[in-house]
Amino acid sequence: MTTPVQDSAAVEPPVTHIIGAGLIGASIGIGLVAEGWTVTIDDNDADAARLARSIGAGGNLEPESTPDLVVVAVPPSAASAVVGDALLRWPDAVVTDVASVKAPIADAAHATGHGERYVGSHPMAGREISGGLGAQGDLFKARPWVLCPNGGTPHAIALVRQIPEALQCDVVTMDAQAHDAAVARVSHAPQVAASAVAAALGTLSPADVALAGQGLRDVTRIAASEAGMWADIARMNHHALVSTLDHIIGDLEDVKEADDIGEALTDLIERGRIEVARIPGKHGGARRDYTAVTVIVPDEPGQLLRLLGDVTDVGVNIEDIAIEHSPRQPVGLTTLYVISARAKELTEILSDKNWEIAAS
Amino acid sequence: MTTPVQDSAAVEPPVTHIIGAGLIGASIGIGLVAEGWTVTIDDNDADAARLARSIGAGGNLEPESTPDLVVVAVPPSAASAVVGDALLRWPDAVVTDVASVKAPIADAAHATGHGERYVGSHPMAGREISGGLGAQGDLFKARPWVLCPNGGTPHAIALVRQIPEALQCDVVTMDAQAHDAAVARVSHAPQVAASAVAAALGTLSPADVALAGQGLRDVTRIAASEAGMWADIARMNHHALVSTLDHIIGDLEDVKEADDIGEALTDLIERGRIEVARIPGKHGGARRDYTAVTVIVPDEPGQLLRLLGDVTDVGVNIEDIAIEHSPRQPVGLTTLYVISARAKELTEILSDKNWEIAAS
Repeated sequence: MTTPVQDSAAVEPPVTHIIGAGLIGASIGIGLVAEGWTVTIDDNDADAARLARSIGAGGNLEPESTPDLVVVAVPPSAASAVVGDALLRWPDAVVTDVASVKAPIADAAHATGHGERYVGSHPMAGREISGGLGAQGDLFKARPWVLCPNGGTPHAIALVRQIPEALQCDVVTMDAQAHDAAVARVSHAPQVAASAVAAALGTLSPADVALAGQGLRDVTRIAASEAGMWADIARMNHHALVSTLDHIIGDLEDVKEADDIGEALTDLIERGRIEVARIPGKHGGARRDYTAVTVIVPDEPGQLLRLLGDVTDVGVNIEDIAIEHSPRQPVGLTTLYVISARAKELTEILSDKNWEIAAS
Repeated sequence: MTTPVQDSAAVEPPVTHIIGAGLIGASIGIGLVAEGWTVTIDDNDADAARLARSIGAGGNLEPESTPDLVVVAVPPSAASAVVGDALLRWPDAVVTDVASVKAPIADAAHATGHGERYVGSHPMAGREISGGLGAQGDLFKARPWVLCPNGGTPHAIALVRQIPEALQCDVVTMDAQAHDAAVARVSHAPQVAASAVAAALGTLSPADVALAGQGLRDVTRIAASEAGMWADIARMNHHALVSTLDHIIGDLEDVKEADDIGEALTDLIERGRIEVARIPGKHGGARRDYTAVTVIVPDEPGQLLRLLGDVTDVGVNIEDIAIEHSPRQPVGLTTLYVISARAKELTEILSDKNWEIAAS
């Protein structure tokens, strides 16, 4: 599904207007301007618009100018209205938006009678959406960018598609309803569940919480993110989110109420394992069979570098890495995920190099 | 709570017998033998016992010999019976076990009338428990080792405590019921919830699942682990696990059934954030304020090393690291967590060194 960068150069970029000068809108503007596009950007907040223009996110839209392409980058709750206004204000323009829920906005676009000029977008910049260093053109690079045509014309689809191609995104095309159902399960419900797991720690003393290991840190990492747009997302994707929560609650109830809780949990874990194996690892392929090699690394600058240097000398590629700091001890447990076939050799060589292998 | 290594050298190590030659028992044996302890090890499975002795986990127990300390390292479901037998067979010995649920075993020990010679242990080797490269003395180093005295005499507590001190563990003392309630919330229920989140992916097509980002990978990582001893653990910690699941289900139901799902989710996320902030980061302290710096790293051996080398040149310590592989593209998004005060400087210097900063 990846599109070579050359394609975006082969097509004349559309004159583009961005409505919304927040992190997403300004980042898209900077990225497109860097690719030589003619971009203007505006915002209800005149200061935000001026700031975005000052950092190269686009120029100022002249009242009489007519963009070929309009990107609506406003909060999800406002997207439907702004998309509708844009379709009516510029009768020849193609309109897209970047909200993380797509069906309600597609419905609103078609309700104007001009839905054929609308194609929904969802740039999946993940946790970066709440991130701090501000707008940058690379924000979406190498990330999935979902296109939801939903009745848009081939012309409209081709025009909108030029944006993720120019930004070197991983373009994925799917139906809006399917998108919303999918993100409810891969993103929205996991956020709710992670927060619920974290909230359940409320009964524990600090000493109890100190028993937490890497497993809990992994499960609750996204629970540390700010509520931000979650309220809008939950309202707009209410149906898919509720049906996913129903699924999760049902499985938890089955474990809780089973005559043999051990048997029920084993069944749930086995079902979960099958699904985790479907989560793409590298390059969209099925996750390869990796083995964890855990090394005890003194918690000093340069030690991790020395370890990875030794690993590189062995010629083993590090597929993933996790650092677990030990409570109250100045060492870190660094787990390297490597191809299983090389794990034993790597462990032996690292031991020879006097690294303490904790386990794998 | 950490105990300097010297202490373990100051005390004469007890003559120790280990019952159970699996990964945990054999690892404890290897670790204690390496510290100069007199250790014997046995197992119902004569082959397993011979193997453990052959790799230096201990010697063969002479029928008439009387150990000072007995370590029961059998599956959780068998621990209560074996602990009881040991207390009766060796009237002068102190007995401990290593099961990850402690109250039922303490109850069984006291039911023999010799509970004052029992002190429960829970070496928290985390995911390594299921790990593959076999027994090693370092398995528990720098990990929490929970001691549950529950009526054990000061002599019994001191004797058992010598084990985690010799293995350089992070010794934590708590009541068995408090331990079980805590691990239900920091370990057992998170496992169940992660599996339920993963199981909910069952309705999705491969293309839908491909929308998964790092958030879902984090939440479901422990859901990839094998069911292993979870059935026993769930049965033995039934009450605490069920009450934790009730808490989690209640929060999910509140979101699901709220008149305003957005408001309810915001409340849950905010409550969860407060708890996540209590999960210890480095050295048991409250998690420091880290900032994420995400770099686009070509997915080739040595590139990660080159990046960390540049970071080390800047003199910034990497507190945590996460590698996110981009679906269908040969690049990885490597996120470095660093002290917030240094993040901007690091980002600028890495940019100067031609690293592509995705966001932070």
